Amino acid sequence: MRVHHDQLELRTKGKGLYEITDDVHAKIDRCGVRNGTVTVFVQHTSCSLLIMENADPTACDDLEAFFDRLVPEDADYFTHGSEGNDDMPSHIRMALTRTSEIVPIVDGKMQLGTWQGVFLFEHRRATHRRKILITIMGEM
Amino acid sequence: MRVHHDQLELRTKGKGLYEITDDVHAKIDRCGVRNGTVTVFVQHTSCSLLIMENADPTACDDLEAFFDRLVPEDADYFTHGSEGNDDMPSHIRMALTRTSEIVPIVDGKMQLGTWQGVFLFEHRRATHRRKILITIMGEM
Amino acid sequence: MRVHHDQLELRTKGKGLYEITDDVHAKIDRCGVRNGTVTVFVQHTSCSLLIMENADPTACDDLEAFFDRLVPEDADYFTHGSEGNDDMPSHIRMALTRTSEIVPIVDGKMQLGTWQGVFLFEHRRATHRRKILITIMGEM
Repeated sequence: MRVHHDQLELRTKGKGLYEITDDVHAKIDRCGVRNGTVTVFVQHTSCSLLIMENADPTACDDLEAFFDRLVPEDADYFTHGSEGNDDMPSHIRMALTRTSEIVPIVDGKMQLGTWQGVFLFEHRRATHRRKILITIMGEM
Repeated sequence: MRVHHDQLELRTKGKGLYEITDDVHAKIDRCGVRNGTVTVFVQHTSCSLLIMENADPTACDDLEAFFDRLVPEDADYFTHGSEGNDDMPSHIRMALTRTSEIVPIVDGKMQLGTWQGVFLFEHRRATHRRKILITIMGEM
Repeated sequence: MRVHHDQLELRTKGKGLYEITDDVHAKIDRCGVRNGTVTVFVQHTSCSLLIMENADPTACDDLEAFFDRLVPEDADYFTHGSEGNDDMPSHIRMALTRTSEIVPIVDGKMQLGTWQGVFLFEHRRATHRRKILITIMGEM
């Protein structure tokens, strides 16, 4: 049984879902754990994680359209606006989705379902450099 | 320290919460881990997981009524509709709840609070066969 | 590789976010694990967990204001009301946020980002005693 830490850095260019499934798989391959779990953790509060359908891009588009309507940028009761009017909505969208996910690893493979992909969900308009921690625990 | 993988298959019959607490407990009993964690992971993007009150069924009914209102099936801005008008809402309800949960195991028992139960949250109307992975990590 | 269980008890005084980052750090320090993960699990269905910005308190205020609007206490379709009109909304706010979180530990430190803090999110108005389980897994 061992623990292996790694990290991904991702440059985002505006709001939306960025798939990182292959990057996580590559980290698992490299560390050699065959049997255990992978924890994905995003070190930010203005973006988040989501395991989402990765077959049809219109599903991601509609998801983003829903969040744009649910958490409007111009809510008149927001007081935390010093970092731009997409900042407070970004924290709320993060709170409604996930900061950490944990996925089983069997025979060296992350056990996602057929249509599942791991995504970083960016909630800010400007370009950002995002850091995602990958912790793999298990047996070689 | 060891890792034990198992799975549950569940046949759902329409939208709603399906309790799986006893099934998860049975998997823990069978593998013999006394001290560690259990990870529950659902391999789909049109249903999700939730740890919810399991004492009064009206709490689950009201939760479902809330989600029906929050994510309406007839939103005119959805473009991903080829699999039926409950498909896109199912991905959004999944995104708003959980794909993975991790619960401590002490003395062979999952440490849920008095009123907590583990549920599969089905978001599709038609019958579906759902696969849930159970990973138990810890000491015998 | 070892497993260490601990718990926090927190007395909440009404709705809002209560930071527990330092308490979780203290548990990690005490158990001596240098390399692994910490799982935080809340044993209730009327409060939840959130990893949120801890620098500017107005961000937390706005988040709470958003949830007050998203899940109103006087929804006329709620039937589960015997424990007060803040009870059913508390379960829904819990469902929309998190029950468990898992954070990597490297060199004995929880790997939160610069602005991240771990919070208990209380959804009830009355005073409550809340129990949070901390499971630390890894190498000394």
